[in-house]
Amino acid sequence: MIENAMSHSIMGRAIEKGLLSLNTVSLRAFSQNSYGSVDDYTYGGGAGMLIGCEPVWLAYQEALSRTERIFDEEAEGDRREEKRVRVIYTSPAGRVFNEAMAEELSREEALIILCGHYEGIDQRVLDRIVTDEISIGDYVLTGGELPALVIMDAVSRRIPGVLNNEDSAGSESFENGLLEYPQYTRPAEWRGEAVPEILLSGDHAAVDAWRLTEAKKRTGKSRPELLEKWYRNRGIF
Amino acid sequence: MIENAMSHSIMGRAIEKGLLSLNTVSLRAFSQNSYGSVDDYTYGGGAGMLIGCEPVWLAYQEALSRTERIFDEEAEGDRREEKRVRVIYTSPAGRVFNEAMAEELSREEALIILCGHYEGIDQRVLDRIVTDEISIGDYVLTGGELPALVIMDAVSRRIPGVLNNEDSAGSESFENGLLEYPQYTRPAEWRGEAVPEILLSGDHAAVDAWRLTEAKKRTGKSRPELLEKWYRNRGIF
Repeated sequence: MIENAMSHSIMGRAIEKGLLSLNTVSLRAFSQNSYGSVDDYTYGGGAGMLIGCEPVWLAYQEALSRTERIFDEEAEGDRREEKRVRVIYTSPAGRVFNEAMAEELSREEALIILCGHYEGIDQRVLDRIVTDEISIGDYVLTGGELPALVIMDAVSRRIPGVLNNEDSAGSESFENGLLEYPQYTRPAEWRGEAVPEILLSGDHAAVDAWRLTEAKKRTGKSRPELLEKWYRNRGIF
Repeated sequence: MIENAMSHSIMGRAIEKGLLSLNTVSLRAFSQNSYGSVDDYTYGGGAGMLIGCEPVWLAYQEALSRTERIFDEEAEGDRREEKRVRVIYTSPAGRVFNEAMAEELSREEALIILCGHYEGIDQRVLDRIVTDEISIGDYVLTGGELPALVIMDAVSRRIPGVLNNEDSAGSESFENGLLEYPQYTRPAEWRGEAVPEILLSGDHAAVDAWRLTEAKKRTGKSRPELLEKWYRNRGIF
């Protein structure tokens, strides 16, 4: 699922161009028994099963070795080997993901993401390997694959060359701290609805002013806390 | 991508069992020109292209007709036909998705999700069809497909029969308002790390008390505002 989803659209193009690379490791390959299972009963009781330490640990070693190989190809001396690769664990109990975290993570050369799982994972292996526990929001999902993809997408799009100008134009929300203003394209009249006249005026300063006003209106309506922050950052209280 | 991702794991099983059904409609099928494109320049200027009204409107009509067919099979008299199908638009400018919204949306018989797009969509068609503009978090993604999948997953797992007991056990975070306590499985000692003794004691009341304490500790540490709310809901200030 991860490989399929990443093969689409902008991310797939970035992988083809060699701007990103993706490696997936399945826990099942590291089962400790002849049934191929990686889960077992939870100590202290509870309805569900839990993924054990050893398969996660071995999958981590495998991911790390692939990551190191990537580093080796680019290495200048032995310096790189000392760098700890950050391991993100997707979990509702984590810090809530935001654009600042995406920006920060995009500066890493490699990331390992351990997908959370509805069954849960033994805490001991999490304590040993995880550097960043991240939640993508206050909702429960059936697995950590979608959160992993969300993190990968938000981080990857910040890597230079991944987005071209056309791609980035429509996604400026948050980057100046306001939600995006409404946008319009041809035809000028669609099923009885006209485009706001000012956008057809050719007066660039007026268009910019209108867009800023609309962005502030919209932000104030759906995300008043973002608008407050926008004013605060400009010293307007 | 949507179909592939939804075919996996718990969601795929629910579709096979007939608990959910999924229809995808591509905007490209409703291009208004011979090139098969659905985008055009933005009025008022700007680097990017914008998806026009008519392809979105026609795709909406197609989705609606498929949804109505689903309703017709179950209809009692003509009553159902009057019900407006909610149309979710995934966008960073929307209300931030949370578990309460997932619960509320899970009571709808059908939902249409319009995937946001890095190019943006003409505001007029959004104003006409969208009932719920939803953001999955304060970060920018290259497209609305992942947010659509996240919403589908969070909503679907609340539909009776989609999760069985084993599935749900590991994902109780937020459902009692606290993050989940740490969990452990065999072996009792793993690479030098022992399971907390109390979990091996067989004393269920003591295990429950320990888990509540740990859940509160963890919530206080990574999400203090959730812990405050938990106390407030219990009348403890």
